[in-house]
Amino acid sequence: MTGAEVVARCQVLARMSETPGAITRTFCSKPMREAHHALRGWMEEAGMRVSVDHAGNLRGVYPAREGGEACLLIGSHIDTVPDAGAYDGVLGVVLGIGLVAGLGGRRLSFAIEVVAFSEEEGVRFGVPFIGSRGLVGTLDEELLSRTDAQGLSVARALRDFGTGSELPPHEYIGYFEMHIEQGPVLESLGLPLGVVTAIAGQTRAEVCFRGAANHAGTTPMHLRRDAMAAAARWIALVERTARVTVGAVATVGSVQTLPGAGNVIAGEVRATLDVRHADDDVREALVNRLRCTAEKIAERRGLQVEWKTRLLQAAVACNEGMAEMLERAVGASGHRIHRMVSGAGHDAMILSSIAPTAMLFVRSPGGISHHPNESVLENDVDAALAAGSLFLRELETVYGE
Amino acid sequence: MTGAEVVARCQVLARMSETPGAITRTFCSKPMREAHHALRGWMEEAGMRVSVDHAGNLRGVYPAREGGEACLLIGSHIDTVPDAGAYDGVLGVVLGIGLVAGLGGRRLSFAIEVVAFSEEEGVRFGVPFIGSRGLVGTLDEELLSRTDAQGLSVARALRDFGTGSELPPHEYIGYFEMHIEQGPVLESLGLPLGVVTAIAGQTRAEVCFRGAANHAGTTPMHLRRDAMAAAARWIALVERTARVTVGAVATVGSVQTLPGAGNVIAGEVRATLDVRHADDDVREALVNRLRCTAEKIAERRGLQVEWKTRLLQAAVACNEGMAEMLERAVGASGHRIHRMVSGAGHDAMILSSIAPTAMLFVRSPGGISHHPNESVLENDVDAALAAGSLFLRELETVYGE
Repeated sequence: MTGAEVVARCQVLARMSETPGAITRTFCSKPMREAHHALRGWMEEAGMRVSVDHAGNLRGVYPAREGGEACLLIGSHIDTVPDAGAYDGVLGVVLGIGLVAGLGGRRLSFAIEVVAFSEEEGVRFGVPFIGSRGLVGTLDEELLSRTDAQGLSVARALRDFGTGSELPPHEYIGYFEMHIEQGPVLESLGLPLGVVTAIAGQTRAEVCFRGAANHAGTTPMHLRRDAMAAAARWIALVERTARVTVGAVATVGSVQTLPGAGNVIAGEVRATLDVRHADDDVREALVNRLRCTAEKIAERRGLQVEWKTRLLQAAVACNEGMAEMLERAVGASGHRIHRMVSGAGHDAMILSSIAPTAMLFVRSPGGISHHPNESVLENDVDAALAAGSLFLRELETVYGE
Repeated sequence: MTGAEVVARCQVLARMSETPGAITRTFCSKPMREAHHALRGWMEEAGMRVSVDHAGNLRGVYPAREGGEACLLIGSHIDTVPDAGAYDGVLGVVLGIGLVAGLGGRRLSFAIEVVAFSEEEGVRFGVPFIGSRGLVGTLDEELLSRTDAQGLSVARALRDFGTGSELPPHEYIGYFEMHIEQGPVLESLGLPLGVVTAIAGQTRAEVCFRGAANHAGTTPMHLRRDAMAAAARWIALVERTARVTVGAVATVGSVQTLPGAGNVIAGEVRATLDVRHADDDVREALVNRLRCTAEKIAERRGLQVEWKTRLLQAAVACNEGMAEMLERAVGASGHRIHRMVSGAGHDAMILSSIAPTAMLFVRSPGGISHHPNESVLENDVDAALAAGSLFLRELETVYGE
């Protein structure tokens, strides 16, 4: 199978959408059923036995050669954000099928299961990873009873969609996910592929500066308690501090000024903070420092600062042995090896609780994702197919008899 | 008349409102008619001849002693912002009547006309100074045909309210306005009164920083074009630059982030800028410097900046001779003289085109204005009455026979 064929299949799936002229495919929607139909055909064509599990995941198993009991799981998700691109998630599923198809019927010492996770983006029910949580066995009652905007529960959505029974948990020798990078790093380095070593942990917070709203004309500079001026100093320092912390990203993406009139000094500013790092200790130290900075700025200016932590998510390391095998595969396929941290969450985070995990990034032109202009280069997909095949060979040297 | 009586009259007028439990009295509204009724009674009681002019201004004339042809105009406005306080504008009108009442029937060498301007805040028609523009003769067709939210024109509002004819323009010896400071300066100095030397000029602009919206997790710090980080640096420098420019105020009161999600780097930030100074050259130089700063910050970061000037308003100087007379009056009333610039616009700006203008500020507790908590201290109003009486005496020494 070629990169061009993989891209063409992603484009076929992109036409299965809830919104005409755009790509939107949420959990248990009609286009998800259409996508299952197409994927099932391709899986069966590649020699897989296909079923849908209790969480709506489409799972195709390509058997091992006789006596092989081990199984490698390869996958990604097929749901999308609203007005999405054609490759986020989907590419990894189609590439997985492509790797199996590339075996041309040849059996390995381990089985390969390709999974198309039903849900990763968190769009319909406001929580992500429903598919992968189902596979690892943590789809609990609380999650099943969660409701969407129409008041339908996850359980009801699954029942209406028509799913299979919960499959007995398998002991996988590994989970392998191929995914577009969704960032500009590989492009900036001129590389098609990156080996992911970890998925960054996250802290999200809401930071509120409270001063005093006053007349912009009649309040001299030295008598102001300007919440926006204080927030501006802090935001500038958030950027500077993150820049000198290797591997960290910190973002203030949303700022609200109250009352928000041009001729009134802002009495209150609400800012969001998003901090990520592969090392939880580094992240926590960075967040603490930013919090101290906010408090110092506020104190010096006679303001109050309120800090609400909204999300704390630990980093997830990929399996080091798997990462080394993936590196050898990338190197053997003729490309320079680049290790990198994923700043975005992936199904691999959930799978890492039950299997050694490996993750391969494919260059994102322009770093664009979650947008109709999301793309991949066919040559880069060829490179992923080549590296993926060599990775299977690496695994055979370990798990072969 | 005492400060307590003046405050009590302001409180009577405060009950004339469009909204129960709050003070809102817009141009040509029913409560404006009620206010006219009350003010007319107080004016007549003080010996004035009262009429309503073509712009809805209530005008009471207290005659000069025989042979006196000159006339001093004293006034302020009686319209309010929504959910206003009881003193902005109103205090100056009631104080004007109080000064005349304080003469106890004694005639001066000049007449005194007290005017309650119908409109200053710009609430109903989105343009301020309708009353004072009417008095100085610049209420033109464009302004008269302007419509409110219900589609009614200024001309129609005046006709429905029922106004008098345009009064022949008078040659006033001066315009004297007493007004709450609406800022914290007098309070910070511990003074009841301030002599206004000028009304600051203003520049208002919308400043848009355009970078690139990207994933907050997957875009390393050095590959970002973060519009909020750029805007934050600029806002911090706006504050710093204004602080070192004597007499200047500069405010970024409203900031909008686009797309405005916590996990997306802001691709665009729209910020307002409000710069004021009594010296137009200083203001223009400061604005140019802030514009250059924005452009430099944007250029260094690969962003674009768009600058739209929304308002350019020249400073208006009060009459120096009148200011000196007012200073002597304040000094003679036993208070320390403090000269100051008004950062807010006032009817005096419009009147300065036809008469030498003098303006007296009364301390605003907490600097609070345009808010239900707006207040004045009765002792400060007593001080204003005393200084105002002495100011009339100063004028008599000049305009007496």
